[in-house]
Amino acid sequence: MNDALTAAWRRAAGHQRRFDARFADYLDSLTDPAGGGLEIPGRGTFPARALQLVRELSLRGGKRLRVILLHEAAALVTDESVPGLDEAAISIELLQTHGLIHDDIIDDAPTRRDGPSTYYAYRRDFPDRPDTALALAVLAGDLAAFLAGRVLLTATLPPDRALAMAAVHADTAASTVAGQLLDLERDFHPAPDTGLLHEVTEYKSTRYSILAPLRMGLLAAGADLAPYDAELRRYATALGIANQIHDDWLDLFGDPQALGKPVGSDIRSGRRSYAVRALLAVCDGKERELVDEALGDPGCDEDTLDRVRGIARAHGVDRRLRADADHHARRAASQTATWRERWRPEAVAFFAHMPAWSITRDH
Amino acid sequence: MNDALTAAWRRAAGHQRRFDARFADYLDSLTDPAGGGLEIPGRGTFPARALQLVRELSLRGGKRLRVILLHEAAALVTDESVPGLDEAAISIELLQTHGLIHDDIIDDAPTRRDGPSTYYAYRRDFPDRPDTALALAVLAGDLAAFLAGRVLLTATLPPDRALAMAAVHADTAASTVAGQLLDLERDFHPAPDTGLLHEVTEYKSTRYSILAPLRMGLLAAGADLAPYDAELRRYATALGIANQIHDDWLDLFGDPQALGKPVGSDIRSGRRSYAVRALLAVCDGKERELVDEALGDPGCDEDTLDRVRGIARAHGVDRRLRADADHHARRAASQTATWRERWRPEAVAFFAHMPAWSITRDH
Repeated sequence: MNDALTAAWRRAAGHQRRFDARFADYLDSLTDPAGGGLEIPGRGTFPARALQLVRELSLRGGKRLRVILLHEAAALVTDESVPGLDEAAISIELLQTHGLIHDDIIDDAPTRRDGPSTYYAYRRDFPDRPDTALALAVLAGDLAAFLAGRVLLTATLPPDRALAMAAVHADTAASTVAGQLLDLERDFHPAPDTGLLHEVTEYKSTRYSILAPLRMGLLAAGADLAPYDAELRRYATALGIANQIHDDWLDLFGDPQALGKPVGSDIRSGRRSYAVRALLAVCDGKERELVDEALGDPGCDEDTLDRVRGIARAHGVDRRLRADADHHARRAASQTATWRERWRPEAVAFFAHMPAWSITRDH
Repeated sequence: MNDALTAAWRRAAGHQRRFDARFADYLDSLTDPAGGGLEIPGRGTFPARALQLVRELSLRGGKRLRVILLHEAAALVTDESVPGLDEAAISIELLQTHGLIHDDIIDDAPTRRDGPSTYYAYRRDFPDRPDTALALAVLAGDLAAFLAGRVLLTATLPPDRALAMAAVHADTAASTVAGQLLDLERDFHPAPDTGLLHEVTEYKSTRYSILAPLRMGLLAAGADLAPYDAELRRYATALGIANQIHDDWLDLFGDPQALGKPVGSDIRSGRRSYAVRALLAVCDGKERELVDEALGDPGCDEDTLDRVRGIARAHGVDRRLRADADHHARRAASQTATWRERWRPEAVAFFAHMPAWSITRDH
């Protein structure tokens, strides 16, 4: 059965390459008057610069997991080429670009995807005018947001299908903002419960990263969502939680070499991740004092982080997180049992194995 | 013929009242699970607070000129009730809400529409955490943006019509962001030319305030836009410029009592308005020194403003602006000559008189 996953990853690598080229073409077409592109003012340089920064961040896109999910969702129904999949993929990735640009304003983050955040690219353009940089970054994020919706509406698709996909996009986008709002609220709770973390994960990540690709892929392939939507949601919700628990585990217990970045960022930023929550739930006394001091201290050193990690291990936080991730991954995979009866086996195998893969990756 | 305008304003007052009630109902339905509303997290208060602030700002909406244009555009084609007009109106007004929320972050503006700006409502919620207030205001603006697109996609309209209206919305929204970017750039020019000001007006205001209501109204009424789009654009562009020149004139020469706010804000903020540009083009020597000192000085007093106004009058800036506004208003009105042949006379009369009205209003 792992052969099925290997084959799916091979397909995925093809999707990713093809998508990156298609995405670049699309972004180029926006500034091409002959290509029926976006109408932007002929004068001035600010609008073109915003489009350029949206383009640069969008094309430093990494694994394109959302694009792969989208293609495999369409492949549940058909192995033929499906019109509208490219537009759906571009829409989802532009929504991600929008979210990243505004997130990096909110977090005052200088880097993103191995390059400058859009906000800091503008800070570099206007070193003496941080307010102008902030204003421009807000607007560049807005531009990405509106482009994300627009690409589904300007493609030549059957109107009812385009409309259904655009409605998924709009619902997803609004839910994701609600998730970002709840994410900000989470860190106002000294010790949020797991239910709150699940809900943040569901709204902030799962909706646009898993559920929207599933829904849009099926819609593009001509499927009717209504009969399957409840199980798609259960699958997405469980996979999203498994994936997030694993991310949070990696940030405390992962290998920085494999990750390609330092661990401990949740501790240093004081973020109430699944790992931080589990840690706070089990330690008290001197241990708690040490953990509380490390939490939210950007200068927390490696030694202190090691001690925090030791405390977590001693209380079984490591094992418990692994068991929780595994539990939710299994819950997701079990949803696919009924999919075999009606959908194409290669794609079902991809979705069946995706949860196990997502909680064993080392980056 | 002024009877036609009077009749149109009477219709308009009805549209406005009805719209305000419909808009409130729509915003309420978002948080009503039984109403097929927006899915927002059940936990936490931040998402609901953002919706509440979007609601409050949206409902302090004033004259709803965009809504009236939209209804009159549909009335060009039919006097029957048109499905989708309410959704189009809500979409346009939510796009406006989005723009205002983000503008008030950009301008650090404490008040808007006789109440707190969304940013400052959050500053009041979190007096010790300006960064949190900024983050929440960015997200509240994003929420309004996505809701603006969503309302057209979740209504029960014929798919091709809903799609055409949603495409107008998406194009308009992206163009408007480009206009906001160009607007920021304008104030980097010591003396921008009239062409740049026209282009800022076109993208920042005209597209969503005039052209989008015209297009959406006609689409909702079942008209095909293609044969008329060029003249709709000429009408909108000329009316937009006339209207903006008049606004800028009011800000220097208007009556603060009638306006309900102090004049001189463009001088004090250093904004390169039509009036400020015209003033800079004609004065030099001592006069120029005085004007340059006043420009961008938030503390510029009434005496100085009076002297600036005197200089402007002495050089005929007052008369020239009036003549320019009149020129563009006539250009707009002349577009409607051919409309009489094919469209309903009452609504044509409204559009024919709108430009003259827009440059004689005192607020």
